[in-house]
Amino acid sequence: MTAVSPFAPKRFPTLPPIDGVRLGGASAGVKYQGRPDLFMAELDPGTVVAGALTRSLTRSAPVDWCAQVLKKGTARAILVNAGNANAFTGKAGMEGVRVMVDAAAEAVGCTRKEVLVASTGVIGVKLPGDRISKAVPKLRAGLTSDGWPQAARAIMTTDTFPKGASATCAIGGVPVTIAGFAKGSGMIAPDMATMLSFVFTDASIPKDILQKITRKAVDRSFNCMTVDGDTSTSDTLLVAATGKAGNKLPKKASDKALKGFREALQQVMTDLAIQVAKDGEGASKFITIDVTGAASEKAARRIGLCIANSPLVKTAIAGEDANWGRIVMAVGKAGERADRDRLTVAVGGTVIAEKGEGVPDYDEAPVAAHLKGRDIQIDVDIGIGRGKARVWTCDLTHGYIDINADYRT
Amino acid sequence: MTAVSPFAPKRFPTLPPIDGVRLGGASAGVKYQGRPDLFMAELDPGTVVAGALTRSLTRSAPVDWCAQVLKKGTARAILVNAGNANAFTGKAGMEGVRVMVDAAAEAVGCTRKEVLVASTGVIGVKLPGDRISKAVPKLRAGLTSDGWPQAARAIMTTDTFPKGASATCAIGGVPVTIAGFAKGSGMIAPDMATMLSFVFTDASIPKDILQKITRKAVDRSFNCMTVDGDTSTSDTLLVAATGKAGNKLPKKASDKALKGFREALQQVMTDLAIQVAKDGEGASKFITIDVTGAASEKAARRIGLCIANSPLVKTAIAGEDANWGRIVMAVGKAGERADRDRLTVAVGGTVIAEKGEGVPDYDEAPVAAHLKGRDIQIDVDIGIGRGKARVWTCDLTHGYIDINADYRT
Repeated sequence: MTAVSPFAPKRFPTLPPIDGVRLGGASAGVKYQGRPDLFMAELDPGTVVAGALTRSLTRSAPVDWCAQVLKKGTARAILVNAGNANAFTGKAGMEGVRVMVDAAAEAVGCTRKEVLVASTGVIGVKLPGDRISKAVPKLRAGLTSDGWPQAARAIMTTDTFPKGASATCAIGGVPVTIAGFAKGSGMIAPDMATMLSFVFTDASIPKDILQKITRKAVDRSFNCMTVDGDTSTSDTLLVAATGKAGNKLPKKASDKALKGFREALQQVMTDLAIQVAKDGEGASKFITIDVTGAASEKAARRIGLCIANSPLVKTAIAGEDANWGRIVMAVGKAGERADRDRLTVAVGGTVIAEKGEGVPDYDEAPVAAHLKGRDIQIDVDIGIGRGKARVWTCDLTHGYIDINADYRT
Repeated sequence: MTAVSPFAPKRFPTLPPIDGVRLGGASAGVKYQGRPDLFMAELDPGTVVAGALTRSLTRSAPVDWCAQVLKKGTARAILVNAGNANAFTGKAGMEGVRVMVDAAAEAVGCTRKEVLVASTGVIGVKLPGDRISKAVPKLRAGLTSDGWPQAARAIMTTDTFPKGASATCAIGGVPVTIAGFAKGSGMIAPDMATMLSFVFTDASIPKDILQKITRKAVDRSFNCMTVDGDTSTSDTLLVAATGKAGNKLPKKASDKALKGFREALQQVMTDLAIQVAKDGEGASKFITIDVTGAASEKAARRIGLCIANSPLVKTAIAGEDANWGRIVMAVGKAGERADRDRLTVAVGGTVIAEKGEGVPDYDEAPVAAHLKGRDIQIDVDIGIGRGKARVWTCDLTHGYIDINADYRT
């Protein structure tokens, strides 16, 4: 068995109820035995939904389905199983989706187009849809407004801890709550179709505005996080807004009244993204990379991800080695504007390379002490512009090889 | 110490002399002690030179210098040291280049603009140029037409074996010889600025034509090979043609008389690229990936490299696991045109997934037997076009982590 991540919190956070949302988990025995593997949420009529889906060109049938539902943008139910990704399963893929959708629609009493589904687990194995449909009526009957821990656990695959986060804010003086959870232990976990996240709020927001705010929050949270650079066939993030808070309906995404909401949603999604990186396969260190002075925010993010995805940077951190040459290398391969002679690299707050060369006689002691810790900070200033981004990842250790090379044996 | 690659040949190949080329290696003590670390080649007057350099935006000072010399395209000497990459060394970088260029120019009696240099090794440490310049006169005096083994060894860093290859052909009925060598143990070796390759021929070819043929051969050899996807600050390939064979000067790169030469140069460079992949850090398996049916050759290459760079595919192969779901995932993330339902994936010649799903009840025995071997073949047909490419890589093992995480300790 895989060791629990050293970053696992002592307990799952207490998440607040969201008016209009009831949720829970159940054991359907899709693949795992003796643990919940089916998550369901029931949403009150009038709930709008936004989301972000994998850009993979080999995406799964459930993702195809969600793309259709998101166009309409209203939802009454979400049904998710773990243990089987229902990806690359040919025509049986959409058949599996149909069984899940039918079961949820019947239980909730809504149309099929109001049901979102996701599947995570092994690729290429036919989904045993009957086990899921059989479990749905009882699962639905037991949904509660505080079923967060069961729900978060039910979507886990190789995760070593469930991941939840919440925040509150106000829209035009009306209090609003956001809560959600995520699974993922790498952009791809072994054999697993991986990152899923479900976020709920009682805010009243038109779907186009919710979609815009969600997209931006994704770019600054989940899209700033990487474990191994591999892209899932099933990545799915859904944000459901029940409208029960009763705030005044905003007119546009940039509405001043939405400032608090934008920040709170960003906070929840960032929190969840960081938890995913901290549960990265084999992770022994959590790495935050701040890139400043790039040509644009996009350029900064790409440079940050290039550093975060470099196996040589990740192994150096695992080895507690301030190998800044590898960071310079990763900046160079990112393909974004950079000037060798304007780069500044700091580790743990100590500048160790600047103006195109290593800092002679920098004090190695604080850097070495920092690298012995669990939380590693890398700052890179590109020195040519004002674009900045923060990116999160974990180190690359023997644990990753153990998990991924020895998965079936 | 790192174990020698299981793919290391019993001995360095016997390479033929190239008329107009004298070469050899010497110990300058730049970093390594008790082994050759300085390679020099002297080229007869009239030698033209082509090449390919790293696209890294943080490339080293020696690469900057080579880019200048290649514009003119004639050369009389090549001088290369191992153990120090002279990369990210600020103003001292070009100073180090100057010392090397001066030493070679003086020894050979040529202009500075006729000297090419390369450095490979640690990034960010000032090059001890005096040790190099001191060693050059004696090194130059001892150059011979059969100094290949010394030369190939002198440029090694973390390589576990020297890599050489040769081929013969004819241009318009006149026999022509090509021989060369390379170093590299990953696109980046630990702390090392990595892939270098030097190829020599007696063919008589104008520099623009040589450059065109070289570029194409690079795209189908070194650019089809990856160990860890990281890009060196120092990658340098040089092809020097002395013109001593006396063949009729070709008029263009597509000249029919050059067919044999193009193929022979491709063969030598492909051979060297494969040897680099086989000496990849921690490699226990050599992987050939044939992509067919893509939208274009470029698309096929990109898909192939995406599979080759996927840590999840590489660890699956290390674990002798026919995990085709990960191959499908890598195709999906390549960003090139692909259709989930037209993909075909074969391992060791056995089709295990096609038409959007796994082949039910495929015979696992030959696949398992194939994966237990050292040479792994993966075939992916995209099913939408005629573009094809072959890509080489190695698996990702505990050895890679050992070498890269524990490098300084």
